[in-house]
Amino acid sequence: MPPEKLRRPSKSLIGTLAENIRRLRHDRGLSQEELADTCGLHRTYVGSVERGERNVTLSSLELLAKALGVSVVELLTPEDE
Amino acid sequence: MPPEKLRRPSKSLIGTLAENIRRLRHDRGLSQEELADTCGLHRTYVGSVERGERNVTLSSLELLAKALGVSVVELLTPEDE
Repeated sequence: MPPEKLRRPSKSLIGTLAENIRRLRHDRGLSQEELADTCGLHRTYVGSVERGERNVTLSSLELLAKALGVSVVELLTPEDE
Repeated sequence: MPPEKLRRPSKSLIGTLAENIRRLRHDRGLSQEELADTCGLHRTYVGSVERGERNVTLSSLELLAKALGVSVVELLTPEDE
């Protein structure tokens, strides 16, 4: 079993997360940098999450959710559900 | 801003996760070791998640959710919601 850091979430889950963050960020007229500043994450980190390249932790999910004004569960739920 | 590994999720979110995993595991008559074996995680890791001591990643959440037969969203949703 690869160490935790190397394991990757499923494409569907990480894709849902990436789409939701991008959509919510656009809806609020925020750049990646502005969103990153709001939640104390690095701009390149937000970019990599939106490209589905990160095995995000719960704490990062919470920072992003809070900055976008939604719950962690909403961030992980497909928009059409 | 502390590095990602040191940041901690909120008590409420990590508490919900811990309660759901323990409840679902008991409902299925699984020990921590059996659950850990099912999802390829270490027994002590499952124990630490159930004690709310882990900043869990999405991939670990998915392994646990799959082993318990629920979605990641269900794992993060309080039982009474």
